[in-house]
Amino acid sequence: MAAPGQIALVGIGKIARDQHVPAIAASPDWTLAATVSRNGRIEGVEGFTDLDEMLAARPKIGTVSLCLPPVPRFAAAQAVLRAGRHLMLEKPPGATLAEVRILEEMARAQGVSIFATWHSREAEAVAAAKRWLSGREIREGRITWREDIRKWHPGQDWILEAGGMGVFDPGINALSILTEILPQKLRLISADLDVPENRQAPIAARLEFGGRISADLDFRQEGPQTWDVEFQTDAGHLALRMGGNVLEIDGTPAGGENSIMGEYPALYARMAELVRDGASDVDLAPMMLVADAFLLGRRNVVEAFAF
Amino acid sequence: MAAPGQIALVGIGKIARDQHVPAIAASPDWTLAATVSRNGRIEGVEGFTDLDEMLAARPKIGTVSLCLPPVPRFAAAQAVLRAGRHLMLEKPPGATLAEVRILEEMARAQGVSIFATWHSREAEAVAAAKRWLSGREIREGRITWREDIRKWHPGQDWILEAGGMGVFDPGINALSILTEILPQKLRLISADLDVPENRQAPIAARLEFGGRISADLDFRQEGPQTWDVEFQTDAGHLALRMGGNVLEIDGTPAGGENSIMGEYPALYARMAELVRDGASDVDLAPMMLVADAFLLGRRNVVEAFAF
Repeated sequence: MAAPGQIALVGIGKIARDQHVPAIAASPDWTLAATVSRNGRIEGVEGFTDLDEMLAARPKIGTVSLCLPPVPRFAAAQAVLRAGRHLMLEKPPGATLAEVRILEEMARAQGVSIFATWHSREAEAVAAAKRWLSGREIREGRITWREDIRKWHPGQDWILEAGGMGVFDPGINALSILTEILPQKLRLISADLDVPENRQAPIAARLEFGGRISADLDFRQEGPQTWDVEFQTDAGHLALRMGGNVLEIDGTPAGGENSIMGEYPALYARMAELVRDGASDVDLAPMMLVADAFLLGRRNVVEAFAF
Repeated sequence: MAAPGQIALVGIGKIARDQHVPAIAASPDWTLAATVSRNGRIEGVEGFTDLDEMLAARPKIGTVSLCLPPVPRFAAAQAVLRAGRHLMLEKPPGATLAEVRILEEMARAQGVSIFATWHSREAEAVAAAKRWLSGREIREGRITWREDIRKWHPGQDWILEAGGMGVFDPGINALSILTEILPQKLRLISADLDVPENRQAPIAARLEFGGRISADLDFRQEGPQTWDVEFQTDAGHLALRMGGNVLEIDGTPAGGENSIMGEYPALYARMAELVRDGASDVDLAPMMLVADAFLLGRRNVVEAFAF
C-alpha cells in the first residue's frame, strides 16, 4: 500500500521541535514537506508563515498536523479540512466540545481522516496497565499529576486565560489515560478548582470520581515532578508512573521505560493507518471530563501567579 | 397497542405541580400511580418518601419521571434503571455530561427507554420556526433570555451553587430551541459570565456563537420577562417569543399562542411513543454548549446576590 506521504506541521514551538519533528523524521510513513509558523522554522524544510498560502502552494501535501494552542486551532483546522486534507490534532482537540463535533462533521463531509490525538495513551506501559486491570476489581484509585508550569510552559500566559484550561492542559493527559485503561466510564462527582486571583483558569484542581477514584492536579510543583496513576484492586496494587511510561505491580517494576520518546512515533504510525483505512479517530471522553469539572467545579481564589 | 400505563413522579415541587401532574392527568397514555418526595404529596395518589421503597412496592409502575435538581438526580436515575423501569428526565438531564452517558449506557443494557426531555422544544411555534428557517440564509441571530430568579426560583440557593448552572438553568431552554431549529451546528466563540461575589454559578451571561449569533442571558430581570429568539435572514425577520410559543414573521403574528401549557403534554406523548417503540432519545447538544460556556467563559465578579 502506498505510504501516506507528505505532511505539513503547523505551529513550530517547543512541542513541535521536541516531539513532532523527530517522530516524523523517524517515520517510514511520513515526510515533513512544509511548516507553517509565524516565527519558527525547521532547517531543510520549506517554511510558510500563512496556512492558506501553504495549502494553495503545496497540493501534494495530503496531511496537516496542528501544534497550536486550543483557541486559534479551530480556524486552522477548518482551513485544512476545507482544502480536503487529512487532519491531525494535538490534545486537547479544541477549545470547546462543539467545535470538535463540527470538525468531525466537516471531515466526514470532505471524505478525509481526522485524528484527535491523546499522546499519553501511547506511553510505553499504558496498554500493559489496561490488560492488567481488566477483570480485576478496582477498590480505589489515585491520580497525582504535579508539574511545574514555569518549566514546561514558560511565559505561556494563554494557558491560564479563559479557554486555556489551566492545570487541565497537562491534567487531560491523566484523564486520557484513565478513560483508556478503565473498563467502566468515569463520572465526576465533585471538583475543587484553585484559580489565582489574577488569572481565569485553575492552577490546581482536586477531583472526585465515582468508584473511589480521585485526582490531585497541580501546576505549582517545584522540584521532583509527578505523573502517577495508582489503583488498589482485589488482586494487588498497580502504579503507572512517569505519565504512563513505567509500570509497577505491588511495588515491583513490571514494564515500560522512563522515556516519552515512543508516544509521538506511535501517534504518527496511527495517523498513517487511519489515512490508509479512510478512517477517523475522535474520542471526546477526556475533554468531556474537563468540561464537567468546569461545569460542576467549586472555585477557590488563590494567590496571584506570575511566571 | 397497549398504553404505556402506570407512571411515578419523583420530586413534587413547583414544576411537578404546575406542569407534570396536569400533563399526566390529561394524557390518554399515562396514569399517575405514585409519587416520591420528602415533603410533597398529590391528593389521591399514593405518596412515598423513599424511591427504592416505591420501586420495590409497586412493580407494575413501568416508568418513572424525575423532577429533581441536577445534582441529586443521578442516584435516583440509577435506581430507576437498575430496577428495570423506563426513565424520563427533566432538563438538564444531569449535573455532568459523563453521568448522562452512563445513564444512556445503563438504559441500553437494561433494555428500557430513556428520554432526556427539553420542554422548550415542544413549545407551540418551535416546529413552525424550524420549517421557516430551513433553506433561508441566517445573517444574524439574537437570543434574549431575561427572567427574574426571585419569581421563578424563590429561595432555590442550589441554582447558584457549583453544579446548579445559574442562569443556564433557564438559558439551556434557549439553547435547546436553537439546537433544534438551526440547520447548522452551533459553535461557541466566547462567553462572559457574571458571577455574584457570594455565589459560584453565573447570574448572567453573554455568549457569542459562530454565524453572528449572540445570546444575552440574565436572571436579574424585574418587571417584564423576555424569552426571545430572533433571526435576520436573506428573506425576512423571524421572532420566536415567549420561550418558543409565539411566532412573528417580519413583525406580523404567524402562529403559536401565549401559553406554555402544551409543552409537557407533548413530552409525555413522546415518552409514550418511545416506550411503545422500545426507543430512547438523549440529545446532549444543549448541555454541551453550556459546558463549553463554562470551559471557555471569562468570569466577572459582580454584586452579591440575596433572594
